[in-house]
Amino acid sequence: MLRAELDSSKVAVVSGGGSGHEPAHAGFVGPGMLSAAVCGDVFASPSVDAVLAGILAVKGSTGCLLVVKNYAGDRLNFGLAAERARALGHRVETVIVSDDIALPDAKQPRGVAGTLFVHKIAGHAAEAGAPLEDVAALARRAAAAAKSLGIAVSTCTIPGSTRSERLEEGQAELGLGIHGEPGVERIALPPAGALARMMAGRLSGTVAGDRLALLVNNLGSASALEMQILTRAVLATDLGKRVRLLIGPAPLMTALDMHGASLSVLPLDDALEAALVAPVPLPAWPGAVRIAPPILRLIPEGLAGETFAPSLDPVTNARISAVAQALIAAEAKLNALDAKVGDGDAGTTFAGAARAVLDDLEGLPQADPAALCRALAERIGRAVGGSSGVLGSIFFAAAAAAFADGAAWPGALAQGVARVQAYGGAKPGDRTLLDALIPAVEALRGGDLSAVAEAARAGAEATAWMDRAGAGRSSYLAAGDLAGVQDPGAAGVAEAFAVLASV
Amino acid sequence: MLRAELDSSKVAVVSGGGSGHEPAHAGFVGPGMLSAAVCGDVFASPSVDAVLAGILAVKGSTGCLLVVKNYAGDRLNFGLAAERARALGHRVETVIVSDDIALPDAKQPRGVAGTLFVHKIAGHAAEAGAPLEDVAALARRAAAAAKSLGIAVSTCTIPGSTRSERLEEGQAELGLGIHGEPGVERIALPPAGALARMMAGRLSGTVAGDRLALLVNNLGSASALEMQILTRAVLATDLGKRVRLLIGPAPLMTALDMHGASLSVLPLDDALEAALVAPVPLPAWPGAVRIAPPILRLIPEGLAGETFAPSLDPVTNARISAVAQALIAAEAKLNALDAKVGDGDAGTTFAGAARAVLDDLEGLPQADPAALCRALAERIGRAVGGSSGVLGSIFFAAAAAAFADGAAWPGALAQGVARVQAYGGAKPGDRTLLDALIPAVEALRGGDLSAVAEAARAGAEATAWMDRAGAGRSSYLAAGDLAGVQDPGAAGVAEAFAVLASV
Repeated sequence: MLRAELDSSKVAVVSGGGSGHEPAHAGFVGPGMLSAAVCGDVFASPSVDAVLAGILAVKGSTGCLLVVKNYAGDRLNFGLAAERARALGHRVETVIVSDDIALPDAKQPRGVAGTLFVHKIAGHAAEAGAPLEDVAALARRAAAAAKSLGIAVSTCTIPGSTRSERLEEGQAELGLGIHGEPGVERIALPPAGALARMMAGRLSGTVAGDRLALLVNNLGSASALEMQILTRAVLATDLGKRVRLLIGPAPLMTALDMHGASLSVLPLDDALEAALVAPVPLPAWPGAVRIAPPILRLIPEGLAGETFAPSLDPVTNARISAVAQALIAAEAKLNALDAKVGDGDAGTTFAGAARAVLDDLEGLPQADPAALCRALAERIGRAVGGSSGVLGSIFFAAAAAAFADGAAWPGALAQGVARVQAYGGAKPGDRTLLDALIPAVEALRGGDLSAVAEAARAGAEATAWMDRAGAGRSSYLAAGDLAGVQDPGAAGVAEAFAVLASV
Repeated sequence: MLRAELDSSKVAVVSGGGSGHEPAHAGFVGPGMLSAAVCGDVFASPSVDAVLAGILAVKGSTGCLLVVKNYAGDRLNFGLAAERARALGHRVETVIVSDDIALPDAKQPRGVAGTLFVHKIAGHAAEAGAPLEDVAALARRAAAAAKSLGIAVSTCTIPGSTRSERLEEGQAELGLGIHGEPGVERIALPPAGALARMMAGRLSGTVAGDRLALLVNNLGSASALEMQILTRAVLATDLGKRVRLLIGPAPLMTALDMHGASLSVLPLDDALEAALVAPVPLPAWPGAVRIAPPILRLIPEGLAGETFAPSLDPVTNARISAVAQALIAAEAKLNALDAKVGDGDAGTTFAGAARAVLDDLEGLPQADPAALCRALAERIGRAVGGSSGVLGSIFFAAAAAAFADGAAWPGALAQGVARVQAYGGAKPGDRTLLDALIPAVEALRGGDLSAVAEAARAGAEATAWMDRAGAGRSSYLAAGDLAGVQDPGAAGVAEAFAVLASV
């Protein structure tokens, strides 16, 4: 995989290795990172010819740097390709990355996710036009200083094979590589904080100073939440307090679908930090962010609940009182209806809202319709749980907003109906309270409350013969169970408008 | 989660819902996408107060658009928050996304990954300074046209619960949501091509035109390779041929660790396409790329193998011939040594290389040391398999490059030794052929071939009492098994230099 647009006057940076580590390495081919990635089969080094083809395709007049992870196959195949390219007269330098600290006395530590530091730093220097010696020296400095440690709770699934499940539930392997090889230690997986302290403790002594970059790598199938929890826990450790630059959490150097993560750290100086933070247009590179405390904002005003100035309007007072008492009186009747088609609490829901309103009738701003509707929205929302309370609140809050925009009662209630329909998702004919409410609110424009009551009654009765419900609890019942039974919500609406006409 | 830097003169775009869908929604807060994300607990809608707090925190003078996925809880809680904000005098519009086509006759299709189209398109319009009506209209157009379908081979693990394993090996669920709910159909998971055709076939009729955007979403723990294979297979279908813009594959709207993927499609026009392709500085957004055939380059020249012009040099000819014959003669002896410390084929390896060289002795460019070393590198690499062949090639290729840089034999072979050491990873004392080769090549600077032979012999004999090997096959053996046995590679080197001194 090569960059489509190559500037042959700049040093080429080539990396690669076995496949199965995606997005490494092809995902990092682009401006400011790799010039080419040479990919073998899953977990197998690419051939010498493949590597040489990559070098020859991108080597400019200024030479080529190979970034190689420290595995025998990669070292030899990239090494021979480098020698063949040199024998053809090209300038090639090689840097070997061996950042794994799993085995402290390993003669050949593995190259793992710390390789990404080297890709980014070498790629940045090359893009900036540095000569080959400088790009190689910077890359070698990063490679020598990068340290990594992995943890996983599963192995990986090699394509065509069954996943070997050597770990039991609750077990984890610490100090593993990126090819499914066993970890150095098998441990009982501790909670995130303890795990972070354990891993950070091992990494801590391998890096100096308190200006570190931390790269948090998803090894394959850890979830975003798991990765974020681990990252936060690592930043809270003593090592984490030395971190200045965070890369990830993100899948960077994976092991197919291994369920695990690795941490890589790198001591920074100005040159390394500048190289890591420089943005690159590569979706696989998550960027490097400077660690900073989150900016917290106070909860905005407007949530505390409005304080309403009570006012008396005799007609409004009488109407609210009558409707509330009628709904309280209908509690048992509506519950009985609901027992046939729902969970039997529709009457209690209406009566609960009615009692909450009646209890503080004199506290309502009766003479200010917009404020009155806002007060009803708030009280019903507080008194009635679940979606019924939210829908009741939506109805009156929408009516209040319509009043504020200049509407009168018919228009305001129509707006309430429209919003309930929009947010609740029910349509006329769906066997809900809308089947009584919609015709009643429409009739309200005529100004005759008897006609309104009649419209609500007819609407409620019609629900008894509606086939199926598209929203609400009745939607889970078969049509036969519903025949002849009014929707309790619609019946409640009819009760309310019936008494309103007689006040 | 709010944008740290907010331009209150622009429309705010707010989304959210339950957690567990990371990077949605907080990962998309930033310039050109969301102004705020309001997140509930895992798979639970945020409270009305939380949504209202989000609206009030970001609403500018020009209003706020809520992007809501079509679930009852989100619809109601975001809806009531919108009404309360309106009642407080703020301008709020809402768009409901219901892109799931799993149930063709669903009255309330779910909102899934197609929501990302709406986030990006609304966010782009808002960032460009469009008024609220225009942002809302564009978002509604995208929401109405987006269609999605999911597939998974596992459910997800709700934190604190055990993963319910309702699917057997080889089974998959088609048409699932993003909360672990069962899919509409359980199927035997077909190969990628057939799966892509099945999913594309269902999506195909729901979108018009041949200018589509395709968003490929990782539902959680599918591996990068799986996602890439699926994407490639989808692009090869009839639907895929209508795709102009590709987003992903990437985790965008996940369901915790569900092992699956979803496809979302959107018919484009100029405005929608411009909004989707505009870059945003958000690592979670993978960008939208225009579909184009890959640019293929021919294999570069230099791989085909050099053609060497044969030349005769009597001394060189005699030396090569003598060394090769000595190594062939030592085959059984070296194999016997290797049988004690390795896999018994060291003699065969040396003899194989020697025969390959001897067979074409007159074809070698004997009079041109650089070309001769390149020819030996190529012949040994071809004749000898595995890492021995690569190391032999590296030795002579590096020597050839040194000759080209002006070295003579001692310097050239020293360069070969250095490269073998660098790429092979062995050091002096590691019980490898280097323990004979390094002293021999050092002695070569003195010009006395007898001294060279003696250095190689002493070096080889010393390996018999070296404790352990750090590289090569002997590194797997315990020290006791090695005592008194020469390293067969070092012994072979000693044979070669011994005969060289006598030519």
